[in-house]
Amino acid sequence: MRRKSLLTLVSLCLFAAVASAGIETNTVEYKDGDVVLEGFVARPEGKGPRPGVLIVHQWKGLGEFEKGKARALAELGYVALAVDIYGKGVRPKNAGEAREQAGKYRGGDRKLFRQRLLAGLERLKKFEGVDAKRIGAIGFCFGGTGVVELARSGADIRGVMSFHGGLGTPNPEDAKNIKCKVCVCHGADDPLVPDKELLAFMKEMRDAKVDWQLHAYGGAVHSFTDPSANRDVARYHELADKRSWQTMRDFFGEVFG
Amino acid sequence: MRRKSLLTLVSLCLFAAVASAGIETNTVEYKDGDVVLEGFVARPEGKGPRPGVLIVHQWKGLGEFEKGKARALAELGYVALAVDIYGKGVRPKNAGEAREQAGKYRGGDRKLFRQRLLAGLERLKKFEGVDAKRIGAIGFCFGGTGVVELARSGADIRGVMSFHGGLGTPNPEDAKNIKCKVCVCHGADDPLVPDKELLAFMKEMRDAKVDWQLHAYGGAVHSFTDPSANRDVARYHELADKRSWQTMRDFFGEVFG
Repeated sequence: MRRKSLLTLVSLCLFAAVASAGIETNTVEYKDGDVVLEGFVARPEGKGPRPGVLIVHQWKGLGEFEKGKARALAELGYVALAVDIYGKGVRPKNAGEAREQAGKYRGGDRKLFRQRLLAGLERLKKFEGVDAKRIGAIGFCFGGTGVVELARSGADIRGVMSFHGGLGTPNPEDAKNIKCKVCVCHGADDPLVPDKELLAFMKEMRDAKVDWQLHAYGGAVHSFTDPSANRDVARYHELADKRSWQTMRDFFGEVFG
Repeated sequence: MRRKSLLTLVSLCLFAAVASAGIETNTVEYKDGDVVLEGFVARPEGKGPRPGVLIVHQWKGLGEFEKGKARALAELGYVALAVDIYGKGVRPKNAGEAREQAGKYRGGDRKLFRQRLLAGLERLKKFEGVDAKRIGAIGFCFGGTGVVELARSGADIRGVMSFHGGLGTPNPEDAKNIKCKVCVCHGADDPLVPDKELLAFMKEMRDAKVDWQLHAYGGAVHSFTDPSANRDVARYHELADKRSWQTMRDFFGEVFG
């Protein structure tokens, strides 16, 4: 067969395989104690078992941005649950409200933050067709801080990936609990996550001998994956968005084997 | 057609395409002024045009390690030229000789280093089937320093990628000449490229508004891609080797479009 016709055939086959994949999405209620949480799940057609991926939201709570990421992950073949840290109906309308909500979980000893993250993790594991031995988590901004916190809790998952998350912690010694791989994608010019915080994080990971990686994108600031971000300190950066998504694909390719 | 048989067909097609690709390798003499240099080229079968990739060697000079990388790049569809910075027959036999040779090019104003790099670039562009508009460069250790230096020379190429290279420069202001994308893969525990040097490099790239990226791998020290490296400060790290190679594939996928 000639090379060109061979490649055409391969392309047609691949197109047919992709076009046949449907995605199912649903709102999902689950609980942390008495508090009702409202997440969003996206699943590929078919039975599985498939790896599951948690998505932890930005400071404004679970919204269209996170739902889009869930769909994109389902298109890659994963069962994706966008979790709700704040509680059903708690969706900050502006920066002030977002700061208040995010601060509640990010501050102090982070016990409540971990509790909400672990509630999402337990819910994800229960979906039919999810391989509970192959779970990962991604998070954006506040959620990026969240997934590293999930790792620090000692959660038994394969890997976490932070997109432009804050990397500081009140308890750096908790890194010794980390069982999973940690991957951080960082805007190299992010004024909200300055070099000092980055170096402290690197020391934390080194001291605890974590399997960790850092990917820093020049020219990118905070929120580089969010097309709606348009401030000096937090702005969409198309190249960094694409590069970090590819890094995530490579990372999950490795951790889910 | 059922999904499983479809995927089998696709796999068979891909296998046939890969198996039909042969690699041709040759030693190549070229010159910098009157100095004879001896490189090594690896090319896929077929006419092209194909992107070309320069490979810049470690401090012991062009050897089997670099030849292996040239073959691996040819298998990815690139014409790969492993260049010779030191000159034909100049192949350090031990660390002392390597230090002397590397120091000659890495020190001072780096004019000679750039001259040798550019001689390799010109040779690569002349190979039949090379698309001279789509050239990249990779380098390891001394060669990692080299490719960033090639970028600082203002070379008209698409991108350079350093694997565990030293990032310091006597002339940080030269970064303003950089026209190509810069990608750095770094052992996060590399004592030969300490955080101070890393931060200075980041500042250099930021100040010059370069399109740059940094990928740092936890647990990895110097020489993490070289299976023969077995010292405390320079040691093979299989995961970092695989991850950085994948990062290179993603990078070239982007820069060669």
